[in-house]
Amino acid sequence: MSEHKDRVVLAYSGGLDTSVAIGWIAEQTGAEVVTVSVDVGQGGEDLEVIRQRALDCGAVEAYIADARDEFAEEYCMPALAANGLYMDAYPLVSAISRPIIVKHLVTAARRFNATTVAHGCTGKGNDQVRFEVGITSLGPDLQCLAPVRDLALTREFAIEYATRHSLPIETTKSNPFSIDQNVWGRAIETGFLEDIWNAPTKDVYSYTDDPTYPPLPDEVIITFEEGIPVAIDGARVTPLQAIQQLNQRAGAQGIGRIDIVEDRMVGIKSREIYEAPGAMTLIEAHRQLEDVTLDRDQARFKRTVSDQWTNMVYEGQWFSPLKKSLDAFIADTQRYVSGDVRMTLHGGRATVTGRRSDTSLYDFNLATYDAGDTFDQSAARGFIEITGLPSKLAAARDVAFGHGEALGESILS
Amino acid sequence: MSEHKDRVVLAYSGGLDTSVAIGWIAEQTGAEVVTVSVDVGQGGEDLEVIRQRALDCGAVEAYIADARDEFAEEYCMPALAANGLYMDAYPLVSAISRPIIVKHLVTAARRFNATTVAHGCTGKGNDQVRFEVGITSLGPDLQCLAPVRDLALTREFAIEYATRHSLPIETTKSNPFSIDQNVWGRAIETGFLEDIWNAPTKDVYSYTDDPTYPPLPDEVIITFEEGIPVAIDGARVTPLQAIQQLNQRAGAQGIGRIDIVEDRMVGIKSREIYEAPGAMTLIEAHRQLEDVTLDRDQARFKRTVSDQWTNMVYEGQWFSPLKKSLDAFIADTQRYVSGDVRMTLHGGRATVTGRRSDTSLYDFNLATYDAGDTFDQSAARGFIEITGLPSKLAAARDVAFGHGEALGESILS
Amino acid sequence: MSEHKDRVVLAYSGGLDTSVAIGWIAEQTGAEVVTVSVDVGQGGEDLEVIRQRALDCGAVEAYIADARDEFAEEYCMPALAANGLYMDAYPLVSAISRPIIVKHLVTAARRFNATTVAHGCTGKGNDQVRFEVGITSLGPDLQCLAPVRDLALTREFAIEYATRHSLPIETTKSNPFSIDQNVWGRAIETGFLEDIWNAPTKDVYSYTDDPTYPPLPDEVIITFEEGIPVAIDGARVTPLQAIQQLNQRAGAQGIGRIDIVEDRMVGIKSREIYEAPGAMTLIEAHRQLEDVTLDRDQARFKRTVSDQWTNMVYEGQWFSPLKKSLDAFIADTQRYVSGDVRMTLHGGRATVTGRRSDTSLYDFNLATYDAGDTFDQSAARGFIEITGLPSKLAAARDVAFGHGEALGESILS
Amino acid sequence: MSEHKDRVVLAYSGGLDTSVAIGWIAEQTGAEVVTVSVDVGQGGEDLEVIRQRALDCGAVEAYIADARDEFAEEYCMPALAANGLYMDAYPLVSAISRPIIVKHLVTAARRFNATTVAHGCTGKGNDQVRFEVGITSLGPDLQCLAPVRDLALTREFAIEYATRHSLPIETTKSNPFSIDQNVWGRAIETGFLEDIWNAPTKDVYSYTDDPTYPPLPDEVIITFEEGIPVAIDGARVTPLQAIQQLNQRAGAQGIGRIDIVEDRMVGIKSREIYEAPGAMTLIEAHRQLEDVTLDRDQARFKRTVSDQWTNMVYEGQWFSPLKKSLDAFIADTQRYVSGDVRMTLHGGRATVTGRRSDTSLYDFNLATYDAGDTFDQSAARGFIEITGLPSKLAAARDVAFGHGEALGESILS
Repeated sequence: MSEHKDRVVLAYSGGLDTSVAIGWIAEQTGAEVVTVSVDVGQGGEDLEVIRQRALDCGAVEAYIADARDEFAEEYCMPALAANGLYMDAYPLVSAISRPIIVKHLVTAARRFNATTVAHGCTGKGNDQVRFEVGITSLGPDLQCLAPVRDLALTREFAIEYATRHSLPIETTKSNPFSIDQNVWGRAIETGFLEDIWNAPTKDVYSYTDDPTYPPLPDEVIITFEEGIPVAIDGARVTPLQAIQQLNQRAGAQGIGRIDIVEDRMVGIKSREIYEAPGAMTLIEAHRQLEDVTLDRDQARFKRTVSDQWTNMVYEGQWFSPLKKSLDAFIADTQRYVSGDVRMTLHGGRATVTGRRSDTSLYDFNLATYDAGDTFDQSAARGFIEITGLPSKLAAARDVAFGHGEALGESILS
Repeated sequence: MSEHKDRVVLAYSGGLDTSVAIGWIAEQTGAEVVTVSVDVGQGGEDLEVIRQRALDCGAVEAYIADARDEFAEEYCMPALAANGLYMDAYPLVSAISRPIIVKHLVTAARRFNATTVAHGCTGKGNDQVRFEVGITSLGPDLQCLAPVRDLALTREFAIEYATRHSLPIETTKSNPFSIDQNVWGRAIETGFLEDIWNAPTKDVYSYTDDPTYPPLPDEVIITFEEGIPVAIDGARVTPLQAIQQLNQRAGAQGIGRIDIVEDRMVGIKSREIYEAPGAMTLIEAHRQLEDVTLDRDQARFKRTVSDQWTNMVYEGQWFSPLKKSLDAFIADTQRYVSGDVRMTLHGGRATVTGRRSDTSLYDFNLATYDAGDTFDQSAARGFIEITGLPSKLAAARDVAFGHGEALGESILS
Repeated sequence: MSEHKDRVVLAYSGGLDTSVAIGWIAEQTGAEVVTVSVDVGQGGEDLEVIRQRALDCGAVEAYIADARDEFAEEYCMPALAANGLYMDAYPLVSAISRPIIVKHLVTAARRFNATTVAHGCTGKGNDQVRFEVGITSLGPDLQCLAPVRDLALTREFAIEYATRHSLPIETTKSNPFSIDQNVWGRAIETGFLEDIWNAPTKDVYSYTDDPTYPPLPDEVIITFEEGIPVAIDGARVTPLQAIQQLNQRAGAQGIGRIDIVEDRMVGIKSREIYEAPGAMTLIEAHRQLEDVTLDRDQARFKRTVSDQWTNMVYEGQWFSPLKKSLDAFIADTQRYVSGDVRMTLHGGRATVTGRRSDTSLYDFNLATYDAGDTFDQSAARGFIEITGLPSKLAAARDVAFGHGEALGESILS
Repeated sequence: MSEHKDRVVLAYSGGLDTSVAIGWIAEQTGAEVVTVSVDVGQGGEDLEVIRQRALDCGAVEAYIADARDEFAEEYCMPALAANGLYMDAYPLVSAISRPIIVKHLVTAARRFNATTVAHGCTGKGNDQVRFEVGITSLGPDLQCLAPVRDLALTREFAIEYATRHSLPIETTKSNPFSIDQNVWGRAIETGFLEDIWNAPTKDVYSYTDDPTYPPLPDEVIITFEEGIPVAIDGARVTPLQAIQQLNQRAGAQGIGRIDIVEDRMVGIKSREIYEAPGAMTLIEAHRQLEDVTLDRDQARFKRTVSDQWTNMVYEGQWFSPLKKSLDAFIADTQRYVSGDVRMTLHGGRATVTGRRSDTSLYDFNLATYDAGDTFDQSAARGFIEITGLPSKLAAARDVAFGHGEALGESILS
């Protein structure tokens, strides 16, 4: 009886490896396999097609979910609020998609009474950590399984297995690219780029056109309310639409290509290529609006908080207690991050050319050197005297103990 | 007798305001004025011409110094080692030139027995703080004077005074730009841009050509030794030459334009435009070489240290005890930052396309998914189990107390 | 007519200086003076007596407020949640009382249509900054006045003025102590201790008995709910009662004496003595309960947040945007800080001897080396291998470049 | 032939478990065993006795080293410079002894041509990580072995094995305490205390007497030079002597007992008891001398650096690149940490009562309220105006958007 068997929930992309995993897990563990496929804007095949293939490959249930709006609103928007760039460069494309997939995997595990959750990651990447730490955070009682790592599911074996069982899936031997993509961006690894002196070739890219030969400059105005993009060129958009539209427009200008040697969680460095035209454009706009609306001290400490947030999300700690406390900090900072940012998109650059905000802390009358100046310059003397006092005292000590700064001697005459 | 009078050392640019200040300070304080002019790569008039003008305007001594190499080596290179970008954007152009000018001012004060040091800054900017905190750090006994702020030396007054005294200086009434420049970059303020919705106009820029219509892409290889650029395309360069050559080549591609609303030390926000083609190109190359040569934890904490270093330098604390301790940290991190970085300069973008380094921590055999793979994937399970344990325990508590994560429900079927 | 005069609200302690200030401000500014006296648990005279004295000294209105519970709940409890110890030592006694007094001053200024707020601080301490930054944060339009600093109100002048006008206040010439106290603690400065080699004498202390000769040990159990003490030895208490009771019991044991050379905001170091028996006991209990209930990463980052919170509160930034965002972080961490802490109070020490909590993350079955052990020791190998990988790679590089660690040679045989 | 066999270097304490491990490793691996015993001030048996026992138990070589001065100078002194307290409480007693033992283990491995290093730790503690990360950092080619964890060497098995082979070692079945000690302190775990509500019993302690019934107060003056204790009560001491003498004197007063629930590296919390009378006394003295001699900003950032240093050392990263860069920072801060600290040791408390230093930044003339006051109080107004400006602007925005602070209303009349 089916109800007496153990069940394994498998994160299912519809591709060769996970299609083979359906049968292979069943064979190796004796369990029934339930697949879970989540649309986070990765494009490609229709979810219904994927669902049918899972069943054809032997799944007892095939769960699919259109999570595009959920992903944009609950995962991309927090990453935007944090200006989340790992190593100041990588917008966490895969890192934020893992927790939402995990959430659906655990939902499915509960619904279909599974005890184990399986995923298609290898044993040397970040994603295995993100999946498994996420899964045990949402379901502390669940077991994790990675057929590639734990059940020796190599690509060669997968091709052979699929052929032998006549699985309804293409078995092209040689795709040189390993790709993960969603609406927030696209990640590409490939053997050629493991030599870090090699430049990426044109066929690496899909979300962005070549910035070397761009179309005419494209001016865009993005409107934010409390840190969230709510309109583009005056037309209201959802977060998902904002990202999609900017993927189009910024992608056409070749914006958001990233080439980085990255510190992985598992202790090694790896070469990664990313494309994230919408994400990088939104982050640049958001940062500049924060420059105008956040208080100086708040902005400085927010960088510390954001670095921590970014590292934690990169490292699969989306559901951890600290991540939630950091969220509370970041949310509090976004109250006044509202207004318009005007940008020129062109030739790989998203350049802010203007900002306006009712909640700005920029005060023309304090900043101007013109007639309307209200800044009291006489306050500066006292400010400088007290601000400089500690360094002055320390310098006097240096002089007294013979450690004073050697003074410049490159005089000409 | 001259030797019985007090002496004031004045930072002298050769321009209208400081030319008038020579006489005005003498009139207002009864002291003799010694001018100090330092070449930090700002271009413009010859130092000898400036020196003669100072004497013609009434200075009793005119000290000039060609400090371009000193500036590149002792000020720009530390900024590069720190990847010093204030608010992640501004490469500290003026901030690092103030301490070297201060050093020469204090040197001159000692040589010419002055008791006071004067500078031409206003009372609402950062530079007054940088000058005065620097001066009292190197000469705790010295007094500071800012004629614009303290002796009511307005531009209108300067024009009138120069005309009345027939000073050998042009008195053009309306230069809309306030500019500070040196080899590390160029800073521009102007009334028109005090409305932060206005975009910069073309005439704002001088170090960079328009990136919208660039020449053909320019490939460059920069060689670093312990964090210092030592060769460009294989030809040895000094730090000064490295910056100068990249100012040319990157400037021709429109690289390094910055438009920012900045948090000043004196508590207000102001709109600033910068150009720093060489600096921004070098920083990008240096960061990517660090990605390859720094250990992960070292790289992460260095970001915290660099932020602190950058804020302190921005705020005039170049000579402070903490700045020196941060220097010790940063210097230690640079031991292995050696190797080549290949970049494509084009249309406003300086894109790293390759890195190679004998001291790299990137290990092809650990990173590759190919045959040579030496990474032990079986270690991953134990790593994940222990890494995820705290979040798992916390999650079990959440579940027990009814604060568990609400699970996803956007299932399609 | 009174209603045509300007009004000044004065923070009024009932002592000599502020009693004289009532008349002196009126004389010097032509304004009417309204006094504000706030009970934050400082003890001493009855508020009604103080109110009458203010009127007798010439105040047109005298506002009094019993803010003891408000102070305990809204100022002391956040300081406890942050474990707020400036320089790891000083529990912010005066620093947290200034903002609540400011709040009442501004309330009174609005009620009585005053345009200026005055306080009795000198020009070299922290409190002037806390008052004035607080006042302009709550009432950006209000002016600040410090008669001691701005109107030359010296102690000698005060004695002479009070005598001349027969003010109803004692004019003892020589009180060697400058004291500020409230329910959270007591701060003492005195000339004798300005020589930092001198030890405090016994007459400095009032909240604490000498710990050298303590009574018998006193065991206490403090119960917390979400970071707040709610019961002592099983009896429910308000925050105010918790502090008061522990001031008694810990004070009798000489707990909470602090002697520190402190970095003031205004750039100088000063010697300070504090007594805070209740506060220090509560902070120790709260920290140890956090050790049991906070996740490791959360606890670590909370230390960074708390340091920032503490520095900001010390520096008068209670009402600043960053302080509020830090509050949001801290509040989120306190959800599970519930349970009992048992302490022994004795001879200057408040020693935690036991903790129990339903929301603990301490897991006996994981921690024990006994039979019930559920920890999977086999996971450790993989964890260590991956955790140590970066240092191993860096070490191999050190060896390759001749910078390897020199190995020990102190072998005996 | 012995020279053809593999060799294992074993960290050897002379106790039951590691005595049995000598033979057990040989049996299980076929390798020869070389023991290494390092004196870090743990007291107990003579090293020669231990050496002989190793040989009697089957070791082919027995390396012993008196590393007490090396430990004090190169491990304890850096911990003192960092004021290294994990979780603000634990002075890293075991954490700093592991790297020095590792250094001798790797030295011995090189001398005796061993390929593997073994240690007696379990699979759930920190020390296995510290040993193994340390070993692969100094000898990236070396293998690690933990017989307890990897070869099932339980205590029951050890007793049975020792009896069966008549090993010259006592086989007492029930020592309830697990102890690690050295001159910096003593760490105790025991089953009874795994219930964290239980208080420690008297028999737990050995370095400290009961603070409840102390002898008369003991006044001590500790002299530091550049962060290092160099004299006690005027008599020159080495670092080792300083720690030893203060262990005696502070131990007699019951100073330095620590009871903590600690976050281990391996993701769990555990109850730990420590005694560190000398270490805690020195740290308190050193911190207070830093309060007097470090610049404010330097002191603040040093806390961040020290926290990171402490966490890294706790987690076995003594030989990591970041640890070394942090050392460079800390070393730079100690230049002026010189002078005398007077303390009263009594009843569990080490109380600083005076500090004097030629390199102090405390300036009596700036701090005093007496006649000699040189502080310019008029500077305060400008300082406050500019310091408070950002909060004032933010507050005005709050008011404009209806988020202003609700004003106090607890007025009495």
